[in-house]
Amino acid sequence: MDIFEKCFQYTEVKTAIKEGYYPYFIPLTENEGTEVTFKGHRMIMCGSNNYLGLTTHPKVREAAIEAIKKYGTSCTGSRFLNGTLEMHENLEAELAEWVGKKAALTFSTGMQVNLGTISALLNKDDTVILDKDDHASIVDGARLGFGKIERYRHNDLDHLDRVMRSIPETSGKLLVTDGVFSMEGDLAMVPELVDSCQKYGARIMIDDAHGIGVTGDGHGTAWHFGLTDKVDLVMSTFSKSFASLGGFVAGDEDIIDYIKHHARSLIFSASITPASTASAMAALHVMKDEPERIKRINQIGEKMRDGYKSMGFNVGKSVTPIIPIMVGDDQKTFLFWRTLFDEGVFVNPVISPAVAPGCQLLRTSYMASHTDAQLDRVLETFKKVGKKVGII
Amino acid sequence: MDIFEKCFQYTEVKTAIKEGYYPYFIPLTENEGTEVTFKGHRMIMCGSNNYLGLTTHPKVREAAIEAIKKYGTSCTGSRFLNGTLEMHENLEAELAEWVGKKAALTFSTGMQVNLGTISALLNKDDTVILDKDDHASIVDGARLGFGKIERYRHNDLDHLDRVMRSIPETSGKLLVTDGVFSMEGDLAMVPELVDSCQKYGARIMIDDAHGIGVTGDGHGTAWHFGLTDKVDLVMSTFSKSFASLGGFVAGDEDIIDYIKHHARSLIFSASITPASTASAMAALHVMKDEPERIKRINQIGEKMRDGYKSMGFNVGKSVTPIIPIMVGDDQKTFLFWRTLFDEGVFVNPVISPAVAPGCQLLRTSYMASHTDAQLDRVLETFKKVGKKVGII
Repeated sequence: MDIFEKCFQYTEVKTAIKEGYYPYFIPLTENEGTEVTFKGHRMIMCGSNNYLGLTTHPKVREAAIEAIKKYGTSCTGSRFLNGTLEMHENLEAELAEWVGKKAALTFSTGMQVNLGTISALLNKDDTVILDKDDHASIVDGARLGFGKIERYRHNDLDHLDRVMRSIPETSGKLLVTDGVFSMEGDLAMVPELVDSCQKYGARIMIDDAHGIGVTGDGHGTAWHFGLTDKVDLVMSTFSKSFASLGGFVAGDEDIIDYIKHHARSLIFSASITPASTASAMAALHVMKDEPERIKRINQIGEKMRDGYKSMGFNVGKSVTPIIPIMVGDDQKTFLFWRTLFDEGVFVNPVISPAVAPGCQLLRTSYMASHTDAQLDRVLETFKKVGKKVGII
Repeated sequence: MDIFEKCFQYTEVKTAIKEGYYPYFIPLTENEGTEVTFKGHRMIMCGSNNYLGLTTHPKVREAAIEAIKKYGTSCTGSRFLNGTLEMHENLEAELAEWVGKKAALTFSTGMQVNLGTISALLNKDDTVILDKDDHASIVDGARLGFGKIERYRHNDLDHLDRVMRSIPETSGKLLVTDGVFSMEGDLAMVPELVDSCQKYGARIMIDDAHGIGVTGDGHGTAWHFGLTDKVDLVMSTFSKSFASLGGFVAGDEDIIDYIKHHARSLIFSASITPASTASAMAALHVMKDEPERIKRINQIGEKMRDGYKSMGFNVGKSVTPIIPIMVGDDQKTFLFWRTLFDEGVFVNPVISPAVAPGCQLLRTSYMASHTDAQLDRVLETFKKVGKKVGII
């Protein structure tokens, strides 16, 4: 049997492209944050994770450029060997403080934080407990560990309790949950999860990729709930509010030190570039110096949710600047996406298997740098297109 | 049981630091390629993968800076959704051509290329066949797939044949090997591996992280053997000769298209930054425009191997600018490393379990930008220190 046979038989994409409904890998020629261009066609970007709009902030750009001038374009080695710069450690110290922890550790991608951290902690006799809506990188981190994986239905505390009860007392337990869920913009029920973990002797880790910079005055979801001390590990990525690429995990020193010496995705991968380290650091400084951006992105979330709701759209349980527009059908979702695209609004269609059949949606997300004029145009376009395709 | 118990009991690092033999995560304050500084202590860097010395090349720096000015510091999204720029596709086209393939696909790290590519291809009934010295990211990519994993002893063709024969004919087969092995600088026996794959109906993928830019006039290890057409997939990282961070896989269009739509580490991770995309592209242009750098790094490899051998060091089977100095004992390796460090030469100690007990070594590696004066100083220092610690 040829292992490539599955590739030769894969024709879905060619069909979608031929029919004009292929929404993925769109090569943008310009990207100034809130507006982007594809083949001369200008669109308002409502499908990015650039929540604070910092990828084009003068201080963030300048910091990245200075780092290239000082250190070159790459560290060409792992943090473990020749790839550590003092600036990595400085960033780690500031990140730890920002999320209210003692220590932090940076990785070259947010995905690699989850892969390395979870697999390092999860030995043969341990169990990791995941929300069924957790990000793919958490699932893969769990699979790379040598322990057991248990999953509970999204934010379902009764199911979680049954799962927790079923795990032997002798098993080490780690619950990992998104802080802000990436597709629907709802929060993890952190207080109840913390209670459950305390009851069953489990540790808890929050993936706050979409939380830091947005929730808890920018400090994240644990902070929002006043539970920084009760959450054992906080991770986040740099490719969202931090306007960079990379990620970190923060926690007590002993735990971070253990992860540092056992996470394969840290030890066997090159460190983040000087430019990306510097832009994450500069973004953190902007969060501190311009807290109005954090207020603004949350106000925009409210404005857009209210706007969509008042037009009759179903926005699910969103309480953040990630706002899903529920559609419930593959074909309608693609038609809705495509018409918005043609009308100058870029959003992301999410169909099964990424969501359950019947839960297909358009994922919209916003930036602190969106102007009210842009946002009003987005709402008007949604109204027009939503009616046209029969969603409202 | 507390899942963190293993962290509280982990004291090896604290002991090593106390005893002055902790060689990892050294925070450099300056890094100009061939020379680096740690706490005011200047060293010649012989432990980097910056083979062509391009991290500080004016054209590479300038390209990265221009990309930040044009596109900002991050794409804040996956290639799959909002994170594709036209420049990603341009880079892919040039990379494919450089390695003699039809199509290529960029990922945000080299590790994620292996994780995504191998796991995407490896379904339940498939088998992946690995050299025991393959890089950790290949092993983890195989573990993330749902197929079987078989391993053969390093470059041992008899063992490979036994392994191949044991795999059911009905199983799809993919052999994955490093092109240049990262610790000892020897090459995969590509002609023999290709023969074996043809005999048993397996596809072959080469991880040429340490090959591109160095072997085959810079085109890599398959090219070196004149076997570009017989090798199905070539991957490499950007964090070595490409002076960046990221990576790519290249092959036939159908296969790359399938990987593009199935590799979780591509779809669920943010795309490489504009700066890193631009620096990889600029590095590729320098490889084309300044082929003397590729010649130079290979000449340096010869010079250093000859130098070490003439002093009585054992350099294993190295035929590339990665040259191991065999030591064979943990304590001696640390002492050797530490004394070189104090004398101004930065190398990497490699002890078990990274290598088998008895095979402990110092990994040295070079850059086209090293001057002969620097290299002579390195050789002299090795001679002095090697005698002092009793290796020669």
